Amino acid sequence: MADPRFFYNSGPFSATELAQIVGAELGGTLKPDVQFADVRSLDDAGKTDVSFLDNKKYKDAFLKSTAGLCIVRPELAELAPSGMALLLTRDPYGAYARVASSFYPVSLPTNSISDKAYIAKSAKIGTNCTVSAGAIISDNVVIGDNCTIGGNVEIMRSCEIGEGSTIGSLVTLQCCKIGTSVIIHPGVRIGQDGFGFAPGAQGHLKVPQLGRVIIGDHVEIGANTTIDRGTGPDTVIGDGTKIDNLVQIGHNAEIGKHCFIVSHVGISGSTKIGDFTMIGGQAGIAGHLQIGSGVKVAAQSGIIRNVGDGETVGGSPARPIKTWMREIATIQKMAKTKG
Amino acid sequence: MADPRFFYNSGPFSATELAQIVGAELGGTLKPDVQFADVRSLDDAGKTDVSFLDNKKYKDAFLKSTAGLCIVRPELAELAPSGMALLLTRDPYGAYARVASSFYPVSLPTNSISDKAYIAKSAKIGTNCTVSAGAIISDNVVIGDNCTIGGNVEIMRSCEIGEGSTIGSLVTLQCCKIGTSVIIHPGVRIGQDGFGFAPGAQGHLKVPQLGRVIIGDHVEIGANTTIDRGTGPDTVIGDGTKIDNLVQIGHNAEIGKHCFIVSHVGISGSTKIGDFTMIGGQAGIAGHLQIGSGVKVAAQSGIIRNVGDGETVGGSPARPIKTWMREIATIQKMAKTKG
Amino acid sequence: MADPRFFYNSGPFSATELAQIVGAELGGTLKPDVQFADVRSLDDAGKTDVSFLDNKKYKDAFLKSTAGLCIVRPELAELAPSGMALLLTRDPYGAYARVASSFYPVSLPTNSISDKAYIAKSAKIGTNCTVSAGAIISDNVVIGDNCTIGGNVEIMRSCEIGEGSTIGSLVTLQCCKIGTSVIIHPGVRIGQDGFGFAPGAQGHLKVPQLGRVIIGDHVEIGANTTIDRGTGPDTVIGDGTKIDNLVQIGHNAEIGKHCFIVSHVGISGSTKIGDFTMIGGQAGIAGHLQIGSGVKVAAQSGIIRNVGDGETVGGSPARPIKTWMREIATIQKMAKTKG
Repeated sequence: MADPRFFYNSGPFSATELAQIVGAELGGTLKPDVQFADVRSLDDAGKTDVSFLDNKKYKDAFLKSTAGLCIVRPELAELAPSGMALLLTRDPYGAYARVASSFYPVSLPTNSISDKAYIAKSAKIGTNCTVSAGAIISDNVVIGDNCTIGGNVEIMRSCEIGEGSTIGSLVTLQCCKIGTSVIIHPGVRIGQDGFGFAPGAQGHLKVPQLGRVIIGDHVEIGANTTIDRGTGPDTVIGDGTKIDNLVQIGHNAEIGKHCFIVSHVGISGSTKIGDFTMIGGQAGIAGHLQIGSGVKVAAQSGIIRNVGDGETVGGSPARPIKTWMREIATIQKMAKTKG
Repeated sequence: MADPRFFYNSGPFSATELAQIVGAELGGTLKPDVQFADVRSLDDAGKTDVSFLDNKKYKDAFLKSTAGLCIVRPELAELAPSGMALLLTRDPYGAYARVASSFYPVSLPTNSISDKAYIAKSAKIGTNCTVSAGAIISDNVVIGDNCTIGGNVEIMRSCEIGEGSTIGSLVTLQCCKIGTSVIIHPGVRIGQDGFGFAPGAQGHLKVPQLGRVIIGDHVEIGANTTIDRGTGPDTVIGDGTKIDNLVQIGHNAEIGKHCFIVSHVGISGSTKIGDFTMIGGQAGIAGHLQIGSGVKVAAQSGIIRNVGDGETVGGSPARPIKTWMREIATIQKMAKTKG
Repeated sequence: MADPRFFYNSGPFSATELAQIVGAELGGTLKPDVQFADVRSLDDAGKTDVSFLDNKKYKDAFLKSTAGLCIVRPELAELAPSGMALLLTRDPYGAYARVASSFYPVSLPTNSISDKAYIAKSAKIGTNCTVSAGAIISDNVVIGDNCTIGGNVEIMRSCEIGEGSTIGSLVTLQCCKIGTSVIIHPGVRIGQDGFGFAPGAQGHLKVPQLGRVIIGDHVEIGANTTIDRGTGPDTVIGDGTKIDNLVQIGHNAEIGKHCFIVSHVGISGSTKIGDFTMIGGQAGIAGHLQIGSGVKVAAQSGIIRNVGDGETVGGSPARPIKTWMREIATIQKMAKTKG
């Protein structure tokens, strides 16, 4: 499936090897000699391909699929088309992630520093890093081992980047510390001044922004996202949190671990968010709020009050999701009646 | 009107020449000897300027205009100020586009490859291209004839760009194929990983994103817009579609031909959109949906269900525009009554 | 408080010096010999630190603070913890801005032009400017004295930049004139084509965008924000206006003086906005509207009609804020009753 000009395939693998990789049980029609060569969607997969079913919406595609091997939940085993081998697991999508990562492992840095990069003498770059052309690495920057620094990046004075991290092309980093195994996609801006002004009738005074941005380990940050540095306290992104494209995170915001933040979300200054919270696309969160852990925020919500652990909210202004839905239903009914 | 430091004027043209260029009839007060030197708005235009009236909102400006030549619909001919020549057409804005493009043609590539660009030996660049300083063109990239590649761009391995396309400065391209006569504005990110993770209580597993981005011909993509590559299937933008600034298009999205997508729109993964669909600013479309052709989506709508061909929707969650408006009117009336 | 790897401290200062800097009266417990070394938040400040109280939300922190010197409103003087010196002023946040700027003044340009920048011979660069590596400065560009031009920036033909302005890294400027003392953060795109097309059943015709972008003095523009040039008229940003990250400003928009525009706001083409207007995050304003001076727009509002001077609006479509709130309350009550 994957275009070989862009992706290198490390296969093939046997069903037994794949079962070990994902920690799944084998099922269905096993053909020990078959080597699986690639991953493909249910619609496109053939006899030597591995596919998966996670979203029930695609169950019909599973029933008709000619995939040689499919990753499914155990209760679906008996519905499998004849001749299909199965990898049985409670977490088909996670298992697919491991299988696909085995076929297409992330490309590693190649221990090459472009002579077209501009690297300050006081900067320290670890072993086995790639630094691309045009990258500007300023005084006292510290980059760990096995990092990849993209083309035309600018990393300003004294920033630190942990081991195994990837900084995409055309990124700007300033006043920040980046953890290990972090992926920052192209065009991300980290550590610029927050939006802080003392308003006045003769014009607004700029308030110095004296904090940093601290990014945890295993964080991923999407293309063209912006994360401002703190005013004095730091802006903090916890370990494992995944941020999509074009997100805005204001000064002093603190985001916990393993959150999902979908594209175009805006998080205002000094708001604190717990762990494993999911924020849907285009949602906005006002400043100086406390959002708990395990919270789910519907897309386009506008949050203007604190939200407790485990709550699900929607609407603008946001309220508990059931309240919001009931209100929508009420309006719909009334508009029909009165119309 | 246009500042000569930024724009080169190819005029003057006679009314007869302009009528031929746009396929319009002449009307009003014709003065065969007048040469028209520029295009200007109705308010500012003088005797040697060409203007146009399309939006009725500006009819008063037409009545008072001193433009020498004005492009209008035939039914407005009799309202023209005395002494004004007319170009009569059913499509004044389209005719103005042609006239203005005649006065100010797009600047062509100049057959110059900067020696400050970093071009891999295996990359193929067509004839008569411009490549600016700092551009990084990687292994096996293929660029067609008559392309313009902006400064400090990064084009990664094996990307293809069709003839006559313009890649603005500081753009990143990876895992993609760009059609002919495409315009990509500065800061656009195409082909980075989609936002795909298998969620887990110990943290979220990254799912390899093994597809590409396929951009059709005559597409235009606004500044700082992001288009993620597919997970396996490709992300596809159809011929002639125009995308504004700061738009997010998720993995596997398929957008048809000749759509308009206004700024800050977010289109989630695996959603399919037909042809000639218009999506207003800041609208969001959830994933795995089917949006038809000729659909109109009001600004800030939140679409969470399929939308059929030709429908007009608004609100969040989006519903048929008339239903939405009736609901708004109902609420307004009730709030007044109860207040 | 500020990390010395990123920020240079110009202190210490005595309370008397600070009182002069901000034009405030001294109060509380004065200890003439104490030199203040830094600024810190109320929670963290110690005996030689300066802090401030502006937002009442943090009054408890003030009561418990061990800050040596605190900037507060006069009426709070008597609540100050014992031993705390005070700077008394009606505008604590503005005074803090001045104090913090005294401790941490903006770093000035260093009169250094990188030999890795690409500067056209016809470009004019003032005295005492910094130009970083990879910056592309094209023909006939004019840059005033005391400017800082970041790394890998592209400044296209004939752009003008006033004295004392800062252009962040990886910015693109075209067809524009930038005032004095302007701050443009990384990744900003100014002056690209507006989103202008004459729609047609065979595809959409591009309308030449023949205007410029004119940015006033003391404007600040946040990271990855995009400002399109005009179609013929110019796009204009008035003196002192502060724009946050990821904002979109369409062609021909005219924004007055000293406005605040928060992140993800979209302002459509040809809309005019007065002075001192504040637009909350993710709000959208349709095209061809008149928005007055001193207007307040709630976050996520969708404005589709003109708004008069001094009005406060909210909701989508936006209405007077009190009307909007009453409507929300009405729906909530009804949904409860009917549920």
